[in-house]
Amino acid sequence: MSVLIVGSTALDSIKTPRQQHPRLLGGSASYASVAASFFAPVKMVGVVGNDFPAAHLQLYKKHKIDLEGLQIVSGKTFHWSGEYELNMNNRRTLATELGVFESFTPHLPVSYQKSAFVLLANIAPGLQLHVLDQMRKPKFVVADTMDLWLNIALPDLLKLLKRVDGFVLNESEAQQLTQEQNLIRAAKKIHQLGPKYVIIKKGEHGAILSAKGKLFVAPAFPLEKVVDPTGAGDSFVGGMMGYLSTASGSIDSNLRRAIINGSVLASYCCEGFGLKALTRVTSAALNRRVKEYESVTRL
Amino acid sequence: MSVLIVGSTALDSIKTPRQQHPRLLGGSASYASVAASFFAPVKMVGVVGNDFPAAHLQLYKKHKIDLEGLQIVSGKTFHWSGEYELNMNNRRTLATELGVFESFTPHLPVSYQKSAFVLLANIAPGLQLHVLDQMRKPKFVVADTMDLWLNIALPDLLKLLKRVDGFVLNESEAQQLTQEQNLIRAAKKIHQLGPKYVIIKKGEHGAILSAKGKLFVAPAFPLEKVVDPTGAGDSFVGGMMGYLSTASGSIDSNLRRAIINGSVLASYCCEGFGLKALTRVTSAALNRRVKEYESVTRL
Repeated sequence: MSVLIVGSTALDSIKTPRQQHPRLLGGSASYASVAASFFAPVKMVGVVGNDFPAAHLQLYKKHKIDLEGLQIVSGKTFHWSGEYELNMNNRRTLATELGVFESFTPHLPVSYQKSAFVLLANIAPGLQLHVLDQMRKPKFVVADTMDLWLNIALPDLLKLLKRVDGFVLNESEAQQLTQEQNLIRAAKKIHQLGPKYVIIKKGEHGAILSAKGKLFVAPAFPLEKVVDPTGAGDSFVGGMMGYLSTASGSIDSNLRRAIINGSVLASYCCEGFGLKALTRVTSAALNRRVKEYESVTRL
Repeated sequence: MSVLIVGSTALDSIKTPRQQHPRLLGGSASYASVAASFFAPVKMVGVVGNDFPAAHLQLYKKHKIDLEGLQIVSGKTFHWSGEYELNMNNRRTLATELGVFESFTPHLPVSYQKSAFVLLANIAPGLQLHVLDQMRKPKFVVADTMDLWLNIALPDLLKLLKRVDGFVLNESEAQQLTQEQNLIRAAKKIHQLGPKYVIIKKGEHGAILSAKGKLFVAPAFPLEKVVDPTGAGDSFVGGMMGYLSTASGSIDSNLRRAIINGSVLASYCCEGFGLKALTRVTSAALNRRVKEYESVTRL
């Protein structure tokens, strides 16, 4: 089954302690879609300006991403620039230029509306809701978010949470949303806001799934070299949704393995600037690293 | 087989955002010995002053800890006081009064010298070396440490590392020792200093074992309530060594399971002030939580 993915499509200028690269292909929908494409056909919803390089469209196409829902409009593509600290965990945003995102309204092509799996990747919750409004009985809907929306669009986010099956957010966002330092207690509070499945991302420390009174604690794949963690969280959730959409059996029986596959794609993402390393992953490499993940975590 | 454990025996005054407790039984040897005692007979090496409450000796005895190597001398017991921040991870030392530790020289009773398993829990590396000098062909020696010794006793620590099988330290200590942010690369550098087995403790994020070119990544047991994390790292390594000393088979074949048992004992440790929760653990509870650990980490 195909996965519908809405999120940001951006140009990212990224600076790490060792390198800097301007205007790379980025955005939550880009990372999530490429990651999901290893498992399933992806239908992308987003917007870019007419400055968007054709090579980037080419990359989407290489991954067989359906671009019918990608609007190309007059104006500048969303541009984000950020800088990482020495530990590669903390980063600060240097500039955010919304460009064509400022007036973006997602319109779903008819062919998109029956997608069973919907990933509302990080984007304003109002837009996530607008996409959801256009869907016809999706089977499994997951939303991701970021701290910005907790600060400026909390009412929309809370409205959204009542309508999704799963919610993915990072550690500090979970703490901010629930005013709870302990992540297990934070997850419980998030369940009360709506989602049956709560996944808290902890970056290099992995992720926690809370579902139906049970926990799954998944470490991150241990990496010797982190080149650029931008998009790792988006790749994680994209990989997870891609895996889920094609696995046979119930969500519950596949979710742990989906999270591992997402973690492995996130690890590849960190090994290159922007989408560079992720886009080069082969099925063989992916399977090899999933096996390696199992061997470093198995008792 | 018995485990010989040397380390600090202390009175701890601990303050958390919610509570404070003065002069609790503490010290690396106390936590490690109680944790190890769930699996194996423990021979403790340490020193306390004549102000040391008899009730604390009683607690050691309840856990069948051999106290022949515990010196009781005239003077004050080592006293540490510290305060935790709201997140329960960061803490700062408020006071350290060495007391009888200032002039402590560990003397090993003859009955101790043939112990096969030796845990050099956190204490000055010079004292760890002095204990090691008195041992007769131990089978497996593991040392723990703390940032203080990296700062003031690095030459002794480096001498020690050439003589131990395993070395346990926490994330920031590994980074400080190797000048390497990435923990996998840090572990590789630590192997070059001597130890075949390197275990990096990451607190609430678990631990990483590096041995013979392979990694084992173990999350911490997820806790809903952390009352006091003091001694969790000592309980971890004590539990690990206790488990190893009684398991049949090779170190390599038991180490992963030993780490899980250590993690579970560390989790109990966090659930009460000082040794309160740890000392109440039953074998049944321990086994139950090990099974629960497996169920939250199993794919």
